[in-house]
Amino acid sequence: MKLATIRHGATTTAAVAVNGGYLPLPARNLSELLGTPEWKHLVRVATSSHSSPDVIPRTEATLLNPVPAPAKVICCGLNYADHILEMGRDLPEYPTLFAKFADTLTDPDAEITSEHSQSLDWEAELAVIVGTTLRDADEAEAAAAIAGYTVANDVSMRDWQSRTLQWFQGKAFDATTPLGPVMVTPDELDPEAGVQVICTLNGEEVQRGNTMTLVFSCARLLSYISTFTTLRPGDVVLTGTPGGVGMGMVPQRFLRDGDLLRTEIPGIGTLTNTVRIRTRATIQSV
Amino acid sequence: MKLATIRHGATTTAAVAVNGGYLPLPARNLSELLGTPEWKHLVRVATSSHSSPDVIPRTEATLLNPVPAPAKVICCGLNYADHILEMGRDLPEYPTLFAKFADTLTDPDAEITSEHSQSLDWEAELAVIVGTTLRDADEAEAAAAIAGYTVANDVSMRDWQSRTLQWFQGKAFDATTPLGPVMVTPDELDPEAGVQVICTLNGEEVQRGNTMTLVFSCARLLSYISTFTTLRPGDVVLTGTPGGVGMGMVPQRFLRDGDLLRTEIPGIGTLTNTVRIRTRATIQSV
Repeated sequence: MKLATIRHGATTTAAVAVNGGYLPLPARNLSELLGTPEWKHLVRVATSSHSSPDVIPRTEATLLNPVPAPAKVICCGLNYADHILEMGRDLPEYPTLFAKFADTLTDPDAEITSEHSQSLDWEAELAVIVGTTLRDADEAEAAAAIAGYTVANDVSMRDWQSRTLQWFQGKAFDATTPLGPVMVTPDELDPEAGVQVICTLNGEEVQRGNTMTLVFSCARLLSYISTFTTLRPGDVVLTGTPGGVGMGMVPQRFLRDGDLLRTEIPGIGTLTNTVRIRTRATIQSV
Repeated sequence: MKLATIRHGATTTAAVAVNGGYLPLPARNLSELLGTPEWKHLVRVATSSHSSPDVIPRTEATLLNPVPAPAKVICCGLNYADHILEMGRDLPEYPTLFAKFADTLTDPDAEITSEHSQSLDWEAELAVIVGTTLRDADEAEAAAAIAGYTVANDVSMRDWQSRTLQWFQGKAFDATTPLGPVMVTPDELDPEAGVQVICTLNGEEVQRGNTMTLVFSCARLLSYISTFTTLRPGDVVLTGTPGGVGMGMVPQRFLRDGDLLRTEIPGIGTLTNTVRIRTRATIQSV
């Protein structure tokens, strides 16, 4: 099943993909839907009883960031063996975690604008969306709590990321992490069996990883995180990026004004984001 | 002016300190109050027109975490020259920032319970509460947007903090950062002129710093943060801890079951937290 947050005319709504388009669900977006305890039941009722006039044709729907209001967006760095090695590090015993905000997220086709950095880099990632509250959960509980999967690009301001020991400030620029275009439920996608994560820049493939090579699986990440903080429906966990980021290239390569960034996970969909660099070597100092 | 979130009987309410106690304000807590654009006006109306029967006697009010629902809790590490030197680092050009969650915060007199770490350390801090939306703000705008100041202890799980390069997982355990007991407005407290930040452990003073020695002032921190992410009313910024943490001692010293942690900023108040260590050398591995 593919769930989405769509704009149709002047309204936004949670929706489920059906033949011919999207069937609206009784919530303004997937954050709100997932916050309803009986959300799976609501989806079942809608899909089993709809008639074709209810369906919004695909051409009339704009796909938005599926979960605009997560209380927690937690990201794992260094989770693909190949990316870890290109960054010159050892395979980790524990997941490296940092946080973003709901404000950091943006729509699957949004422009990504930078005014304060000229070192924007790409990080194609599989993102997990939580469907059930998790606290001190084991991996089986965590696996069962996954609402679905979506695509993310953890676009990073490498200059800000390396200003201090903590990456956070280079990872939390408003509206720089596109998410979407839909959330695919676990019955349709199995990252442990292997899902491709692909990033292309102006048509050139720069990243292609497979979630089979994740050091920490989705369920393991959720279980680990739930040891220290409660995860709730709609929270988002980014699972890390495979090799091929610009910072790892020789010479290093960063996004330029007008670049077209495409982030694809077959079985979910593609993010298509144009980069806008507004700054003229005016990197902000304090 | 001192604003607070108090529990009185079965209800919680935002309140302002007046002679004899607390005067309720029309919001369930300060997060909700600060989210009201005319919050300063509401406070003025309440204080100018109240009669003594409206006042909740101090003995009937329990002071809670003043801002239970911030969308952003951003912390600055390494911001007091003496603490930076004890951690073996150079004075920074940029603030070191990381995030916590609303869930990380707890009440000013709460027990702090650890089940998964035996390396709990103290970090007494001045916290700033945002009163106006800030984006790309200069220092003057940032200073004017400060709703007030409160006391925090950024209690840190040093083992988890040092598991990876990113401190976040050792800083984001649910209900481990006490905040309060009240929010003092800027007309009554001026950290740039110098405010003492004191931590005692079982009566022994372990930290005493002065905000005069902050490398990055409150306004500078808010201005810097607003360069990459929007700050909104009720958001919280922790300004860093002075020297004297347990990890910096020789030998290192961590909190033990039953320890009484007191965190004081004269002019604001005192946090009083008993530590409960529930684990028996069962530090969670993955």
